[in-house]
Amino acid sequence: MTIKVGILGYGNLGKGVECAIKHTSDMELAAVFTRRNPETVQILTEGVKVYSVEEITSMKDQIDVLILCGGSATDLPVQTPEMAKYFNVIDSFDTHAHIPEHFDTVDQAAKEHGHISVISVGWDPGLFSLNRLYASAILPAGENYTFWGKGVSQGHSDAIRRIEGVKDARQYTIPVESALEAVRSGSTPELTTREKHTRECFVVAEEGADLKKIEETIVTMPNYFADYDTTVHFISEEELKRDHAGLPHGGFVIRTGTTGWNDENTHVMEYSLKLDSNAEFTSSVLIAYARAAYRLNQEGQTGCKTVFDIAPAYLSPETGAELRKHLL
Amino acid sequence: MTIKVGILGYGNLGKGVECAIKHTSDMELAAVFTRRNPETVQILTEGVKVYSVEEITSMKDQIDVLILCGGSATDLPVQTPEMAKYFNVIDSFDTHAHIPEHFDTVDQAAKEHGHISVISVGWDPGLFSLNRLYASAILPAGENYTFWGKGVSQGHSDAIRRIEGVKDARQYTIPVESALEAVRSGSTPELTTREKHTRECFVVAEEGADLKKIEETIVTMPNYFADYDTTVHFISEEELKRDHAGLPHGGFVIRTGTTGWNDENTHVMEYSLKLDSNAEFTSSVLIAYARAAYRLNQEGQTGCKTVFDIAPAYLSPETGAELRKHLL
Repeated sequence: MTIKVGILGYGNLGKGVECAIKHTSDMELAAVFTRRNPETVQILTEGVKVYSVEEITSMKDQIDVLILCGGSATDLPVQTPEMAKYFNVIDSFDTHAHIPEHFDTVDQAAKEHGHISVISVGWDPGLFSLNRLYASAILPAGENYTFWGKGVSQGHSDAIRRIEGVKDARQYTIPVESALEAVRSGSTPELTTREKHTRECFVVAEEGADLKKIEETIVTMPNYFADYDTTVHFISEEELKRDHAGLPHGGFVIRTGTTGWNDENTHVMEYSLKLDSNAEFTSSVLIAYARAAYRLNQEGQTGCKTVFDIAPAYLSPETGAELRKHLL
Repeated sequence: MTIKVGILGYGNLGKGVECAIKHTSDMELAAVFTRRNPETVQILTEGVKVYSVEEITSMKDQIDVLILCGGSATDLPVQTPEMAKYFNVIDSFDTHAHIPEHFDTVDQAAKEHGHISVISVGWDPGLFSLNRLYASAILPAGENYTFWGKGVSQGHSDAIRRIEGVKDARQYTIPVESALEAVRSGSTPELTTREKHTRECFVVAEEGADLKKIEETIVTMPNYFADYDTTVHFISEEELKRDHAGLPHGGFVIRTGTTGWNDENTHVMEYSLKLDSNAEFTSSVLIAYARAAYRLNQEGQTGCKTVFDIAPAYLSPETGAELRKHLL
């Protein structure tokens, strides 16, 4: 028997989930739900239908886990608690500051209706969080450092696109190599925002736009760029398409800490990801936690969970005995 | 209320556990047990007694978790199932091939007596296993690679010490940089034993020993050295003490895998450790899982577990709400 997965929202993430399901042997895509006209949405999997989101609750007995592929700003705060009434759900809610309240709302809905919800699944929050937790528990005398990139920040790219005279843009977040090296040395440096990351922008300007003004607007933009060393390159639309079509990302979680009666020994724990496609990798994490959510619910568990609350074995299609034999 | 920890076996690992307890705020050392004459064993913690292992069962109500610090070859296969009758126990059993049978024996004893046991805790098996599992579940189309070092292999150092004419020795296992780079490139190379690691030996010979013969014996030794490119350096006892006193270790777990409808995107997940003291770091992992074992048992759970079966949040002294707020 395979786990029947539904997808709500068919953008980059939803499509990534569809591809990730194809890579499993124990899961199948049951349905895709969209806010658009379903007839305009073409999916990749043969024989699977696209439905209007209006029909979603009528499908509740045909879906084991629903994966919410909307955005954190406005979609998920509403969708996840609402859908938790009808389905086991997974989301990738990534507004770190609002995770506690999102957790509480979803937890209440999931418990009342006897479902499992797993929120904030992906790589940060997600796998990076896991590494911060494991490392902090093991080396209590130490410091965590998280670096992002090299990769495309969609939020920063969007911020540039909103500037007058900008046709399109791509922004890369780049960790500063010397800061990474300082952290790896175990010296627990205090690093400012500017010392950790630089930002590199590739901008396609409208014809006749004031390039000087665009650059000035970017590098002085509060929150997004003002606290960073930012480089702006103006390129043609063809160059953007040719050289910056992908959405790569990644980063590093490093903890250094000391042990010994007098803290005489230093250790460095490092986790890193180098991803060709941010959305497809995130989707692959979502699918592994969908498997876990299904199993937890089969065991009779309910309520909201995060990656912190789920034993790793639940993520794998293999049995405990198989895992102990060849991965332990 | 603090968690009361007992240590069985006071070698490098037992001493490391003692130091790791000092770094926690929710645990205390309750007793150390030894097979030696307890009067000959000096520990670091003031006010804590050393007992003969003969007295251990009489202490069963004063210890929440017992950490077994013996060796995997002969100590743990007997000690862990025996002690699981009286205590929640943690061990670092690291003979990968015998984990399944060790698990079964310990599971039976722990279940019969209502305790939790966690076996094979440390970094490999342990944290490296966790990373192999997470990465395999997330990128099913991919390959795992594990490299060890640079670090001291005690088994290989001991093997050299048993050679006639050798007074002392230290053997370093070193990952081959070009193999690491090939793996990181995502090309999923097939690597032979010789291509993954080299071995470097620092040997103190007895006066008048046949150095040529010692070197020949080392580099041709089956299982230990014959399949590797091995370098032998003869040094003085002073140099060994001065330059090779520590027991550093570490290594890398890398998984590369593909996603996308036609596997068009490649991802690299890398975990690495760089440890000044193998024993002290392993002890720190043991202590985090001792916390988890205590909590699981408080919840009424029993039986044998591995790192695969324990949700990460159990390792941390912080509450779920605290963890969600500042680590997720």
